[in-house]
Amino acid sequence: MQNEIDKARVLTEAMPYIRQFYGSTIVVKYGGSAMDDETLKEKVILDFILMKLVGINLVVVHGGGPHITDMMKKLGKEAVFIDGHRVTDDETMEITEMVLSGLINKKIVSLINKNGGKAVGISGKDAMLIEAVKKAGEQPSVDLGQVGEISKVNPELLLSLTRDGFIPVISPVGFGVSDGKTYNVNADTAAAHIAAAMKARRVIYMTDVKGLYAEYGDEKSFLESVDEAQIKELKKAGKIGKGMIPKIDAALYCLKNGAEKVHYIDGRVEHALLLELFTEAGIGTEIKL
Amino acid sequence: MQNEIDKARVLTEAMPYIRQFYGSTIVVKYGGSAMDDETLKEKVILDFILMKLVGINLVVVHGGGPHITDMMKKLGKEAVFIDGHRVTDDETMEITEMVLSGLINKKIVSLINKNGGKAVGISGKDAMLIEAVKKAGEQPSVDLGQVGEISKVNPELLLSLTRDGFIPVISPVGFGVSDGKTYNVNADTAAAHIAAAMKARRVIYMTDVKGLYAEYGDEKSFLESVDEAQIKELKKAGKIGKGMIPKIDAALYCLKNGAEKVHYIDGRVEHALLLELFTEAGIGTEIKL
Amino acid sequence: MQNEIDKARVLTEAMPYIRQFYGSTIVVKYGGSAMDDETLKEKVILDFILMKLVGINLVVVHGGGPHITDMMKKLGKEAVFIDGHRVTDDETMEITEMVLSGLINKKIVSLINKNGGKAVGISGKDAMLIEAVKKAGEQPSVDLGQVGEISKVNPELLLSLTRDGFIPVISPVGFGVSDGKTYNVNADTAAAHIAAAMKARRVIYMTDVKGLYAEYGDEKSFLESVDEAQIKELKKAGKIGKGMIPKIDAALYCLKNGAEKVHYIDGRVEHALLLELFTEAGIGTEIKL
Amino acid sequence: MQNEIDKARVLTEAMPYIRQFYGSTIVVKYGGSAMDDETLKEKVILDFILMKLVGINLVVVHGGGPHITDMMKKLGKEAVFIDGHRVTDDETMEITEMVLSGLINKKIVSLINKNGGKAVGISGKDAMLIEAVKKAGEQPSVDLGQVGEISKVNPELLLSLTRDGFIPVISPVGFGVSDGKTYNVNADTAAAHIAAAMKARRVIYMTDVKGLYAEYGDEKSFLESVDEAQIKELKKAGKIGKGMIPKIDAALYCLKNGAEKVHYIDGRVEHALLLELFTEAGIGTEIKL
Amino acid sequence: MQNEIDKARVLTEAMPYIRQFYGSTIVVKYGGSAMDDETLKEKVILDFILMKLVGINLVVVHGGGPHITDMMKKLGKEAVFIDGHRVTDDETMEITEMVLSGLINKKIVSLINKNGGKAVGISGKDAMLIEAVKKAGEQPSVDLGQVGEISKVNPELLLSLTRDGFIPVISPVGFGVSDGKTYNVNADTAAAHIAAAMKARRVIYMTDVKGLYAEYGDEKSFLESVDEAQIKELKKAGKIGKGMIPKIDAALYCLKNGAEKVHYIDGRVEHALLLELFTEAGIGTEIKL
Amino acid sequence: MQNEIDKARVLTEAMPYIRQFYGSTIVVKYGGSAMDDETLKEKVILDFILMKLVGINLVVVHGGGPHITDMMKKLGKEAVFIDGHRVTDDETMEITEMVLSGLINKKIVSLINKNGGKAVGISGKDAMLIEAVKKAGEQPSVDLGQVGEISKVNPELLLSLTRDGFIPVISPVGFGVSDGKTYNVNADTAAAHIAAAMKARRVIYMTDVKGLYAEYGDEKSFLESVDEAQIKELKKAGKIGKGMIPKIDAALYCLKNGAEKVHYIDGRVEHALLLELFTEAGIGTEIKL
Repeated sequence: MQNEIDKARVLTEAMPYIRQFYGSTIVVKYGGSAMDDETLKEKVILDFILMKLVGINLVVVHGGGPHITDMMKKLGKEAVFIDGHRVTDDETMEITEMVLSGLINKKIVSLINKNGGKAVGISGKDAMLIEAVKKAGEQPSVDLGQVGEISKVNPELLLSLTRDGFIPVISPVGFGVSDGKTYNVNADTAAAHIAAAMKARRVIYMTDVKGLYAEYGDEKSFLESVDEAQIKELKKAGKIGKGMIPKIDAALYCLKNGAEKVHYIDGRVEHALLLELFTEAGIGTEIKL
Repeated sequence: MQNEIDKARVLTEAMPYIRQFYGSTIVVKYGGSAMDDETLKEKVILDFILMKLVGINLVVVHGGGPHITDMMKKLGKEAVFIDGHRVTDDETMEITEMVLSGLINKKIVSLINKNGGKAVGISGKDAMLIEAVKKAGEQPSVDLGQVGEISKVNPELLLSLTRDGFIPVISPVGFGVSDGKTYNVNADTAAAHIAAAMKARRVIYMTDVKGLYAEYGDEKSFLESVDEAQIKELKKAGKIGKGMIPKIDAALYCLKNGAEKVHYIDGRVEHALLLELFTEAGIGTEIKL
Repeated sequence: MQNEIDKARVLTEAMPYIRQFYGSTIVVKYGGSAMDDETLKEKVILDFILMKLVGINLVVVHGGGPHITDMMKKLGKEAVFIDGHRVTDDETMEITEMVLSGLINKKIVSLINKNGGKAVGISGKDAMLIEAVKKAGEQPSVDLGQVGEISKVNPELLLSLTRDGFIPVISPVGFGVSDGKTYNVNADTAAAHIAAAMKARRVIYMTDVKGLYAEYGDEKSFLESVDEAQIKELKKAGKIGKGMIPKIDAALYCLKNGAEKVHYIDGRVEHALLLELFTEAGIGTEIKL
Repeated sequence: MQNEIDKARVLTEAMPYIRQFYGSTIVVKYGGSAMDDETLKEKVILDFILMKLVGINLVVVHGGGPHITDMMKKLGKEAVFIDGHRVTDDETMEITEMVLSGLINKKIVSLINKNGGKAVGISGKDAMLIEAVKKAGEQPSVDLGQVGEISKVNPELLLSLTRDGFIPVISPVGFGVSDGKTYNVNADTAAAHIAAAMKARRVIYMTDVKGLYAEYGDEKSFLESVDEAQIKELKKAGKIGKGMIPKIDAALYCLKNGAEKVHYIDGRVEHALLLELFTEAGIGTEIKL
Repeated sequence: MQNEIDKARVLTEAMPYIRQFYGSTIVVKYGGSAMDDETLKEKVILDFILMKLVGINLVVVHGGGPHITDMMKKLGKEAVFIDGHRVTDDETMEITEMVLSGLINKKIVSLINKNGGKAVGISGKDAMLIEAVKKAGEQPSVDLGQVGEISKVNPELLLSLTRDGFIPVISPVGFGVSDGKTYNVNADTAAAHIAAAMKARRVIYMTDVKGLYAEYGDEKSFLESVDEAQIKELKKAGKIGKGMIPKIDAALYCLKNGAEKVHYIDGRVEHALLLELFTEAGIGTEIKL
Repeated sequence: MQNEIDKARVLTEAMPYIRQFYGSTIVVKYGGSAMDDETLKEKVILDFILMKLVGINLVVVHGGGPHITDMMKKLGKEAVFIDGHRVTDDETMEITEMVLSGLINKKIVSLINKNGGKAVGISGKDAMLIEAVKKAGEQPSVDLGQVGEISKVNPELLLSLTRDGFIPVISPVGFGVSDGKTYNVNADTAAAHIAAAMKARRVIYMTDVKGLYAEYGDEKSFLESVDEAQIKELKKAGKIGKGMIPKIDAALYCLKNGAEKVHYIDGRVEHALLLELFTEAGIGTEIKL
């Protein structure tokens, strides 16, 4: 019995946090081990449903790069990356969309619904959620194909779904307004733009690292909290890896559009979301203006 | 950190229960040690707020007999009980109302609000919530004074308050529709009638005993669950004490008016409400039809 | 019959006034003879209900000083006043709250409901309506105990109750946000702050004098209407008594927060409220910016 | 001052009546002296506005026979009546509609609005409010022209207008669903059918007689209240005049469709409506089932 | 069958236009041949209903001068015009109102409703829609009688009717706020003021000419589109006829109050409204700022 | 110009039909040539958008068998059919879902949105729209794998989307409530069950045949309209092909659940939907009870 009482006490300890986020919109970029590891996955899903039950308007944006590469292989097609972007010809785009919107998206939805949530899986093409334009390669001669940059987010569908109690799960595929083509968009950036359009309060990136470091590789330089000024310095000092830069820029973008904080948390930690939101622990790095 | 992860896990374990009661109305009769013991009291208040945060329309009905007797003493007046009812002359009624609606009620309200809830303390006279008529004494010659029987509950105010996010806290004082007098009503019965009028899903009585027994005093005869048929037998066999009978009748009344279950739980156990609602443990006795 | 026709004509004469206040919020500070005299009381209650029926969002704030002093005496406690404030130790606060929120408040509620209104009695502690802080004594060495100054009014509960057709009746007791204690607040000031928070159109103080005078005691100097400039002059000339100053300051406060006019009316006159609002007569003193 | 206090008292005396009708729909058939006498007219208009202000959903249906006859004369056309019905050829119908919907209707509207109400004048053709069919003459050989019988009332427009705070004023002209023609319908019957379709609580006919009599001409036989059984007897005994029969039948029709009472009041009495609704006097004859 | 397929194709061709106006308010000034020619009339009515069905908030304002003159003649009264205004004595006003609000207005309503729309005919006196003041004659000595200038439009009734799915049909009669008299107002001006008050997107004047010309009589100088600057020049050059000036000024007035465009279309062309709104053709002259 | 006028006339001819379906829910099963032929596809999409614009709550259910078989081939997997069902092992289900929910579904969505509609693509797994159970093979020894039978439809998501102006496009994939697996469900049956759950008024099956025939192959036996009795006879006489039977049963199912009519139309005809709904032509076979 004492055990059960301890559990009840835990619930009441979470209360101030629950109250704090009641009615707030939180966008979670879901990916990495938290999405691929079977044990972790089950736990994240429970975290999602709990967040919704205690009054958070949860929006999930997922990635899925490795699965695309796998499917391309099965279909005898090799993945080519230039400057970190997957070169996306018509066939690659079709595979990408099929895998992201048809497989990964619906698996997340199923898992949430099986556990009692009410998820709805959509892509950025639904209700013109994500408008995109073709991204220019860094080298003028390079054509990245259907790699897109987000030009606008139309949040009506998300507002409608969250208001009616659903958890939107979004596949990072955009619609080319000028050419009607489908575009592969960066999931991190998509999460930030969606958060900005929805006036979200928090954005949480689930990654496979502990967070940000002032000196990459030096555990002691781990950053619990950074602000814009510090980020500028770190960038200047070359301390932020090239792959990390778009994520950091996305974070700054949504902070400037009304988000209170952006978190990078370690998705390899069980219940990382609940730890971050509902306990004193807090994990990972938080970014503020 | 493991400790924090364990806490997060507890939250997710509570999820199926939270989901089950989401949007339901639950009436709690609050009294006994849970109301008088300083340590327990703080915990019950947290339980109340948590119940509200996870989507329960909570309604609290409190008692307060001993405090009335104390105040009567201070004012040099002796409490007289006949057949378990406090004989209530005009002055006693005034003291009763002052203590119940002015002191106890507002203390509970303060405690909830201090901890972050939004409680509103009312009595059965507000918005004519509890209509009462004079109760006849068991012996015709006895005049119990302003002891009332509930003749009708008008739940509009409660529906309005719960819809707008408040926790109504109710003092068991009724309004005499035919004579305009104030009446002292039984808090257990009030909880049952309010539950019936609000179509509540559960009614929980917080008491200072473990629950019901088939053989009073015989720990082995403890009843985890009883239904109407068993209650009839127990009554017939004289196993239900005279003081318990109105409580049991109140339970049957609200079950017949739509409640799913009525619980008698031991308010001396910490977080007894959360244990009963949100863990597998379950405590006390449940009554079903 | 002619008599009845005359009555009907009276109704139509009131029409322009009824139309003028339709949908407006009016806060009435209720006290003095209008609250204590049995005959007057009945009439004021009818006025309250009529105001509500013809479309006014009525909010009533009551006082109750003399009753507190009586109850203190009964309990063998002497009332001590310093600079016009009741020194309020813990026990005094408990008696004050019991009398204001438990007795007087519920009596007004009963009387309104008995006559067909729908009143709900609350105190400033309910839904954290009145937030208060400890008042410093004028002499630094004096500790007034739990005498409070209003630091904030949270009008949500009042807006919810008035929108749903109820008449809120408010006991002037506040909640100490920083210390969780209960505070005795001035009812006149409470009425003004509540009016400001609710964007009320009018505030009416029911008193036991005819209104304001330029020369106290000189009937000919009676003021039907004064504005801020005149008040400044009167203050400067020492024409406003010390006890009157907080009332006048409260009036100016709510005028500066959107109220159109503040009225001081003589509660000893039958149907003083209706006379002021619905007839050409008008009584008492009106204060405008 | 005493005079003003008396006036205020009158307002409170009206309160129980005001409360009783708060939120109810009342249909008034407006005609006779109350519509034609300049002095009376002004007073009735005030009564209409007051009814609306104190929470009644007022609907006015007017007649206008004499004015039609006047206009016909001006245009060199003679009015022909058979069995009490105006024989209505195309030109007569045009004059009828012009006078009823263009002149009388708008005059009533103007008068209400000038005095501060919000009236909207419509005819039974607007939003297909009154559907009509051609009335067969009593003698088969007689063609009454466009005299119509009401076949259906579509109350949507009235519900919309009353909900938004307007007073609908209705001209008794119907639309022939099968032939698209305009029909002259009986205003008394229209009031009854509209009341039935709107689930009105009361219907009040303003006439130029005191009410109903058991023996026409015998003042002592005046009927304050009659029910269906008595009406049957009176009819049988030939005590109800031929012109009165359709009015009586209309009354019974709306009583059977949910109205509580139908009143015949003497429109020549000042403020007859207020007397009937808001004073103890009560005038005229009431019909109940 | 091919024929039917062609019809279906036409529907889809109209789609971009339908989408463009979905949810917009459009005010149509209805008059001329489109109102008087039996064949054209039927077609315009169908256009009205279709506009409403495809999501336009349609408001119709009609004129009716010639019919007034006819009725005056029948009643032996001669129409007198000064500077283009009908001199309107009391009797003329009564005839005007009777014809406009009683005859023409209700005929349009009938025709719409017979064809399946839900029209409601009102005049500017209903709900005080059009407030007017007496118009001064150009020559000081001339008294035009009840010719009015619009001083204010109160659009509440129109907003209520359009929101509830009705088509308001408005007779150009105004209410004199200062004198309570009825005023004859210019229908063109009324349409412009109503459009401004309703924040309408378009105003369409149905006339009996093709549109505006730079050189009246010179077909080649026909103007498809003019803006304010051009209008100024045309006025200066005396190219805009005196009768046209108020119409043009009305157009500029509503453009300055938020309308996107004002159209003058030739009502003699079948389905002129649909051509203008839903086909590429476009007809008449459009005026923009 | 005459050409344009003819077009406008077509719009008004469609009006009675538009009015008839205004506000109705219509489920379209979209497949066959209408989905695969590039020219036809564009036209159907326009039809969808027009239906939505004129007030129909459109719901689209698509199929996609041939595309699944294609993708299976590309991945080196052979499609196996038993009794008309695709044997669906885990890998086949994954391919099926990827193609249906990831490719086909999003292509339809894109096409609608590109043309100005607001489509949202979901599968039966979203918000648990389609609950399914494993289908038993006709021969007990045969395991069809994840071929599902629909056990329940939860229409909340569809009601929410249609109310907010979106066109839901549904991929026929169901969620196994008892085993959490994904199921391949028959698109025809899905359309019928969705229609029943939404209380749809019409269900339209777009096929590649003209409709139903009494004698297959005998053009003269074409059926324009059949009812339940005739279907029974045709079945008995063996006139309905095995592949057609589930479609017919689905039709009867939704007719019994409130649909007015079910249509089988020839998707090879341009604008077949508009022809069926908005012209007198009507095409294909209609089934009624």
